[in-house]
Amino acid sequence: MALEQSLAQLSLASVSAENALTTKTLVFKPKTAKTATPVPVVVIALQDTKTPTSLVAASALVKEPRMASADLVEEFFKVAPTEVSIANLHKDLAGKIKILLDQKITEAGETPLELATASSKAALPANVVVKYLESTGIETVVVDFTAAPSAPAAGASNDAKARKTVAKQKKEESKREDAKLIGITVDKTKDFSAWYSEVVTKGEMLDYYDVSGCYILRPNSYHVWEQIQDWFNIQIKKLGVRNAYFPMFVSSRVLEKEKDHIEGFAPEVAWVTKAGNSELEEHIAIRPTSETVMYPYYAKWIRSHRDLPLKLNQWNSVVRWEFKHPQPFLRTREFLWQEGHTVHLTDKEADEQVMKILDLYTKIYEELLAVPVVKGKKTENEKFAGGNYTTTVEGFIGATGRGIQGATSHHLGTNFSKMFNITVENPEGADKPKVYGVQTSWGLSTRVIGVMVMTHSDNKGLVLPPRVAQTQVVVIPVGLTSKTADDERKGINDGAADIEARLNAADVRVTSDYRDTYTSGWKFANWELKGVPLRVEFGPKDMAQEQVTAVRRDNGEKYTVKLAELETRIPELLETMQKEMLEKARGDFDKHRVKVDEWKDFVPTLNAKNVILSPWCGDADCEDDIKDSSAKNNNGEDEEEDERAPSMGAKSLCIPFEQPELKPGQKCVKCDRAAVTYCMFGRSY
Amino acid sequence: MALEQSLAQLSLASVSAENALTTKTLVFKPKTAKTATPVPVVVIALQDTKTPTSLVAASALVKEPRMASADLVEEFFKVAPTEVSIANLHKDLAGKIKILLDQKITEAGETPLELATASSKAALPANVVVKYLESTGIETVVVDFTAAPSAPAAGASNDAKARKTVAKQKKEESKREDAKLIGITVDKTKDFSAWYSEVVTKGEMLDYYDVSGCYILRPNSYHVWEQIQDWFNIQIKKLGVRNAYFPMFVSSRVLEKEKDHIEGFAPEVAWVTKAGNSELEEHIAIRPTSETVMYPYYAKWIRSHRDLPLKLNQWNSVVRWEFKHPQPFLRTREFLWQEGHTVHLTDKEADEQVMKILDLYTKIYEELLAVPVVKGKKTENEKFAGGNYTTTVEGFIGATGRGIQGATSHHLGTNFSKMFNITVENPEGADKPKVYGVQTSWGLSTRVIGVMVMTHSDNKGLVLPPRVAQTQVVVIPVGLTSKTADDERKGINDGAADIEARLNAADVRVTSDYRDTYTSGWKFANWELKGVPLRVEFGPKDMAQEQVTAVRRDNGEKYTVKLAELETRIPELLETMQKEMLEKARGDFDKHRVKVDEWKDFVPTLNAKNVILSPWCGDADCEDDIKDSSAKNNNGEDEEEDERAPSMGAKSLCIPFEQPELKPGQKCVKCDRAAVTYCMFGRSY
Repeated sequence: MALEQSLAQLSLASVSAENALTTKTLVFKPKTAKTATPVPVVVIALQDTKTPTSLVAASALVKEPRMASADLVEEFFKVAPTEVSIANLHKDLAGKIKILLDQKITEAGETPLELATASSKAALPANVVVKYLESTGIETVVVDFTAAPSAPAAGASNDAKARKTVAKQKKEESKREDAKLIGITVDKTKDFSAWYSEVVTKGEMLDYYDVSGCYILRPNSYHVWEQIQDWFNIQIKKLGVRNAYFPMFVSSRVLEKEKDHIEGFAPEVAWVTKAGNSELEEHIAIRPTSETVMYPYYAKWIRSHRDLPLKLNQWNSVVRWEFKHPQPFLRTREFLWQEGHTVHLTDKEADEQVMKILDLYTKIYEELLAVPVVKGKKTENEKFAGGNYTTTVEGFIGATGRGIQGATSHHLGTNFSKMFNITVENPEGADKPKVYGVQTSWGLSTRVIGVMVMTHSDNKGLVLPPRVAQTQVVVIPVGLTSKTADDERKGINDGAADIEARLNAADVRVTSDYRDTYTSGWKFANWELKGVPLRVEFGPKDMAQEQVTAVRRDNGEKYTVKLAELETRIPELLETMQKEMLEKARGDFDKHRVKVDEWKDFVPTLNAKNVILSPWCGDADCEDDIKDSSAKNNNGEDEEEDERAPSMGAKSLCIPFEQPELKPGQKCVKCDRAAVTYCMFGRSY
Repeated sequence: MALEQSLAQLSLASVSAENALTTKTLVFKPKTAKTATPVPVVVIALQDTKTPTSLVAASALVKEPRMASADLVEEFFKVAPTEVSIANLHKDLAGKIKILLDQKITEAGETPLELATASSKAALPANVVVKYLESTGIETVVVDFTAAPSAPAAGASNDAKARKTVAKQKKEESKREDAKLIGITVDKTKDFSAWYSEVVTKGEMLDYYDVSGCYILRPNSYHVWEQIQDWFNIQIKKLGVRNAYFPMFVSSRVLEKEKDHIEGFAPEVAWVTKAGNSELEEHIAIRPTSETVMYPYYAKWIRSHRDLPLKLNQWNSVVRWEFKHPQPFLRTREFLWQEGHTVHLTDKEADEQVMKILDLYTKIYEELLAVPVVKGKKTENEKFAGGNYTTTVEGFIGATGRGIQGATSHHLGTNFSKMFNITVENPEGADKPKVYGVQTSWGLSTRVIGVMVMTHSDNKGLVLPPRVAQTQVVVIPVGLTSKTADDERKGINDGAADIEARLNAADVRVTSDYRDTYTSGWKFANWELKGVPLRVEFGPKDMAQEQVTAVRRDNGEKYTVKLAELETRIPELLETMQKEMLEKARGDFDKHRVKVDEWKDFVPTLNAKNVILSPWCGDADCEDDIKDSSAKNNNGEDEEEDERAPSMGAKSLCIPFEQPELKPGQKCVKCDRAAVTYCMFGRSY
């Protein structure tokens, strides 16, 4: 076979290709019991791919890998460590070693790879290399080394699906003992991040994408977004808001004009500098948000106070090229959101607008997603810099004990209208000074979907609130075996089809599963994984008694529903489930929102996975002090605020509108000043 | 800085350039309250551009501008009025003066401008002048001085080059004599392009944007798009299609992988090369379409024939950085569309999918937008290169006699599934060869809105089909004068409010206009401009007779509707109007789709603003020959296919499904071969 021949020639060859990607081949030895034979891990990666041992460990499911000794390399590969190349990997090593293959190599197609050892060099098309490795039968895990250890399937690459194993990267100890092959393999309480990644991918909410930090929203999650859109559109239209669409591009000149505003976004702006092969004269940004896109036109359109209020909203995607660890739904480089921007004649009107929208955001969380939130105001430190004040709905992720900002509604005052000259003639007379418009802006993003998943889902997979679930009910015929008589089988299947049709006619989003290649148990697990709220079983006993058995996804409770009552009882059950999901989550949030008046209790309470309500002086420096002092390892370095840093300090999340009463003379939890309010603090996303 | 130096030399220089355009610099002082500091308006224009004070006033949004006194000029510019040039405009004047810049200068590119003062003269390329003005930070409005005073704000921009008004290009003779100040000033039949630009901007469908080729979709047009989305979503969900969202970014590696596919798009791809200040390691494209984004994941998700059909659709925006003349809705660098991508087990299923979608597209045009289309198949020359065949709905713009592609639905065969390895196990057994999925794709964009506007609108402005109009009815109290008694006025206004409330309750999208600062006539014109389908007048006579007067926007017909019948008759009138708008447009299309069997009649018929149905041999070279031979100026040069080239040749638009019968022995209209089909040819967008 030509391939093997050409590989055999590696030791002789010194051919190269100009555009070849350089590679490296590294051999690791994991920690191995003395009585056992070590299983070396060979990493084959592009030269400049970083392959930290932590990621090697997680991907190969081994402990403490270290660079292998020359002896070990010699033993397995018959050459010195500097001479190892794919030419030394062959069928005989199958079962004896593992390979970790850089995902980038699997995606390189026909691009040549330069395979070099200390003494030789060769170039081969990447796909030939991949094919060869496949042919060896050695266990090979394709790894996205750009992903953090906790976000496994970032690899899940596209081509060569058959030859690819998804890197699980989970730690042995967090493996669920009862994990089925198709199901979630990680315990939510033990490795939350890995659990989350499995739930969203196996639940078909999302897939990892070729461009880091971008994700595919599959129908199961996009449907949730559509439900939110439909509901929110109806509500905002009642408030006189109209939808529009502004371009995704902003010229550098315009974007950089409002320096103060853009300062916060500048490091994350994605720039288009080329079209086809032409360099653009002026670089063009992709909107990170649309103030600078929209407000110049607001200034143009608004002439008279009769043009106010102007209330526009748009559904679009924005791009913030963050370099922090991305996370599905929560932190993504492109995300979908709505951004509303209104202009009013008076402060008071703007106040009302801000609060009406905040109420709608609360309802989206609580009534659609069954996720409880706390409404409040951001501190000066945490507010949107360009505005007068920021209101927020704050959620809580019980599994990590961290708060999460749900959505914000800003009162911008006249800060932007002064920058952009959004004015109207003074209603009291054209001779009086012009009046600047008072503005609001507010946004809610696909982050909500992540919060929903984190809140409700469990070790069996997704749990979707019925109101937003793409599929609310799955009908499954049960009790059929190979011994079932044909007419009984037909009766059951026809009955199930009839149930499906009736529910469909009753506006229940229903599907069914008649596959006879799977057991009922497998099907149950599969639909549980996907989060379908209600499973309706129909078997011989049900048929005899003119009923179905309905099983709730969230708590496994079973209900017997008479066929005659299908159209009323099933929607009722769905509504009950919706309501109880919210109640359960609210109970959890309430339990873990702890009132702490003294500093000595602050950090211990925080470390017990709570958010905290504390009396506070309102001082920004004190707020910073609280954050620093509550970091687990307060070593003076900036902690990165992501999930790899559970040690980070507690931020102020909001000053809740609903306030405990301050005792007379109550001091701030941290400093000696008098408290002026209760503030909610917590580690957060 | 070289530029500033060269400008500083203006007072000394007497250089000139042979082809330089002479210019003038004028300083105006607007009427200013005595207590206020005046803000001079500097007009920089070509020497022979007329700059009437009325236009200066409207463009600069100032009152009664007069030539500034020598004192004022001296105060601001430190020189005598005859010595003012751009050399006297500098950063320190930002915020203190305004500039009105002749649009012709912004369009002059590198053509030199002669900048003369009484004592000196210099020549500089126009774009250098524009850049310099930009660098000053002085508020600059680009003004089309050839436009009527009423259309100032198409520019309404504070800086020069990019925020430019569309070239109006209309000649004096195309000005409408009855043009009112607020209305359309150009005749649709005389200067279609300028008319279109005015209709879409004054009708508040769209605004021109700072980045060339991008436009703002205002609520009046976005609402049309939302109506289309809502309708289409319901229909495709019935066909089992589900919505999803894929990232807007494609890595260069992936995009360039499918060279054949991308070839057509490559020159138009916008590239992100920077994030913040970091150069990206790999350049990332913004999707021009999503085949390469989606299909790798199709390959991953599709494992078994049970996973088929896979039918996904997404609503998104795509970017094609065209360098041709952009046109609102029709040719824009970013545009909104839906793109559906399905995979089937068999050719036949894919055929059916293609046709079902084409039917939906037909209904969007005909039933929602009242625009008739011809369904057919594209020739091999014109089909989507990556597919087996392309079906299309073709529209017709009567005013220009040009065809326009409405939307396309492609049968891709297994071309892409072979590239991307989208396969399933053979249903006849795993030992049989794998089966490649058969694919379709289909898209419809915001272009539809442009076609709708071009088809129905008239010299009074927009005409919107009722089903998609954001506002279907405007209620206007009439017959009120300064002499009207207060109680009668109240009776009329209350009556109108009641009518509005009743129509609103009957699900009619209704608004009203009670402004007493405008006459009824002005209001009528204003709502006609915005295309509201039905005007409901309510005056003293109507009140007495318990009726309203309803006036149709499309044909001005008046109807008397009894108040008691409001809820039934008004919706009926809207439906009738919808139907008759389609009939009228269909009549026009039918009249101008002319059967031509002999070549001698071909070009004359084409030049009479028709599209043509001709017998054709089916040969691609013959098709090219028809195109070349039907160009008005067939000088061998490539004609640019845009509106500035009405002389272009006739393309094949489609082979209509509905075919005239071919006579026995019928020859091709162009060559000597036998005709195999009738084909529709025309000049096109």
